Amino acid sequence: MAVTMRDVGRRAGVSAKTVSNVINGYPYIRPATRDRVLEAIAELGYRMNTSARSLRTGRRGTIALALPELRVPYFAELASEVIHAAEARGLTVIIEQHGGRRDLELDVLTGSRRDLTDGLIYSPLALGPGDEALLDVPYPIVLLGERIFHPNLDHVTMQNTAAAKAATEHLLAQGRRRIVAMGPNPDQDVGSAPLRFAGYQAAVEEAGIAVDPALAVPTKRSWDHATGARTIGRLVDDGVDFDAVFAFNDSLALGAMHELQARGRRIPDDVAVIGFDAIDEGRYSNPTLTTIDPGRAQIPRDAVRLIDERQRGVAGDPCRVAPEFRLVPGGSTGAEELAARGARA
Amino acid sequence: MAVTMRDVGRRAGVSAKTVSNVINGYPYIRPATRDRVLEAIAELGYRMNTSARSLRTGRRGTIALALPELRVPYFAELASEVIHAAEARGLTVIIEQHGGRRDLELDVLTGSRRDLTDGLIYSPLALGPGDEALLDVPYPIVLLGERIFHPNLDHVTMQNTAAAKAATEHLLAQGRRRIVAMGPNPDQDVGSAPLRFAGYQAAVEEAGIAVDPALAVPTKRSWDHATGARTIGRLVDDGVDFDAVFAFNDSLALGAMHELQARGRRIPDDVAVIGFDAIDEGRYSNPTLTTIDPGRAQIPRDAVRLIDERQRGVAGDPCRVAPEFRLVPGGSTGAEELAARGARA
Repeated sequence: MAVTMRDVGRRAGVSAKTVSNVINGYPYIRPATRDRVLEAIAELGYRMNTSARSLRTGRRGTIALALPELRVPYFAELASEVIHAAEARGLTVIIEQHGGRRDLELDVLTGSRRDLTDGLIYSPLALGPGDEALLDVPYPIVLLGERIFHPNLDHVTMQNTAAAKAATEHLLAQGRRRIVAMGPNPDQDVGSAPLRFAGYQAAVEEAGIAVDPALAVPTKRSWDHATGARTIGRLVDDGVDFDAVFAFNDSLALGAMHELQARGRRIPDDVAVIGFDAIDEGRYSNPTLTTIDPGRAQIPRDAVRLIDERQRGVAGDPCRVAPEFRLVPGGSTGAEELAARGARA
Repeated sequence: MAVTMRDVGRRAGVSAKTVSNVINGYPYIRPATRDRVLEAIAELGYRMNTSARSLRTGRRGTIALALPELRVPYFAELASEVIHAAEARGLTVIIEQHGGRRDLELDVLTGSRRDLTDGLIYSPLALGPGDEALLDVPYPIVLLGERIFHPNLDHVTMQNTAAAKAATEHLLAQGRRRIVAMGPNPDQDVGSAPLRFAGYQAAVEEAGIAVDPALAVPTKRSWDHATGARTIGRLVDDGVDFDAVFAFNDSLALGAMHELQARGRRIPDDVAVIGFDAIDEGRYSNPTLTTIDPGRAQIPRDAVRLIDERQRGVAGDPCRVAPEFRLVPGGSTGAEELAARGARA
């Protein structure tokens, strides 16, 4: 039999309401009363009853978010936003990191932790086409990303190709002609890399320029600062000529910008740089980073709404959502001043 | 009765080993075989048996890390490092964010999620002195931070005061005399803010300088870029004269550096800036950020080791660990060149 606030109050000689006040940290409680209540809580081993709703509704009130790597700011910020969106619906979130390892991605799907959560927001890196059957699990899943699709599952994705095209067009509009695409991976035919490269390619070709293979620079899968710095450094060492960089995420862009500046290149005068994701860091870099906001506010809101509606049984047919994107002007392409002038005009 | 790999294999007409190979994504499996196995997995509702060890040892193999806010890079990187340290011990980690809200911090301690984890690495912000009895829970806890201490619990903390003193001495050694301390909070008498301010104060006073109250600049509790930028901007607007900033974390420092540069101040010539935490971002800012590494490698390793030893029943008396810190030289105090010269010498 679980210990209740009433039991704690009886032991401490106060009302259940006073116990609740102590637990919730209300001021104006006499120190002696407070101590008696805390002692009673400890003696009786009282645990807050978070399952009251669960008993009423058959739901646990907890969902999971599984993502590749919290160290990548995009995912840390996404996690934080999913938690806030879930809170607004009275849901708790636990975060699991799988590191893009297939065994851990499978453990996310099938491990015993799933017995404690109502649903899963799932952003895999290792699973891909051919693995769809592994997603036939007995709880709601909302997919994120572009690695794997499933006709029966809700999916929140991005307008990768259109947004990448807009990013490239922004550079072309400023007269840049030798634009590095940082992030394509010749070994990958699914995921955000090929989709973003397609947008780059379309924009360049529409401008009447042939895509120069020397400017399509593959990177390893982890798109972090160090990779961006190393990749652009190698390009400079190889004597490749370029006047702009479209990096497939902001961490790559910020790493590249750092390395270029360390080598005496001026941003944006010598090299204009644009990223993708609109992470917080790019608003405080020097110069600030021009980037693509792929729908940062809407992605977590939609993901949580879909998983919530699905588990409450009020969702319609499985749907695929790709929010509007927008270009965020920054100093790294000289766009900050343009934007400021526009705002004033 | 749980479905086993053998059951799946029987249905698909293959061995359990082949089922395992499909699940683990081994190449060289005929597509037809693979499809049959995936179909059988879906039909039988097979779920990977992650509880085999749990049955053997009575342990669940999962620990929780509860922290204030993943959006703060320090915590995102800490989470990632805890996960890697746990992996090395065969443990899975779930992350919970409480946002420094008392009700959520209590829910972390007493919510039903605790039935699924073997132990908790706990970094509270709202709980504090007087709440110790709430930590008397029936599972192992390792505390992080300086908000609350408990004689019976393992605790991994930092050498806050000594490290803050070293940071301030670094600025003094370069002839800076009007050093802003960004982060003290006059309403808080526990936590890292007063400890770091004590280090600042000791260094300044040992240098024979009286602490100028105008240079001790309080901030709200969330130490992020925006707060750093806003705080230093207000100081400049107020006409306060200063030649250096010791920000109590790196996000504040990077926000302040951004705002100072936007207002035409040169870093470090006009204002030298030092942070605290050694987050990844500071290695790629322009200039790079001088900071304090409070023991980033050791903190997650020690926390995971202690929780693991405690739950395996092989730990000794509760202990308090505060790893060695070190100053990381960067361009924001002109220390990068000194360090490079030192490395070459």
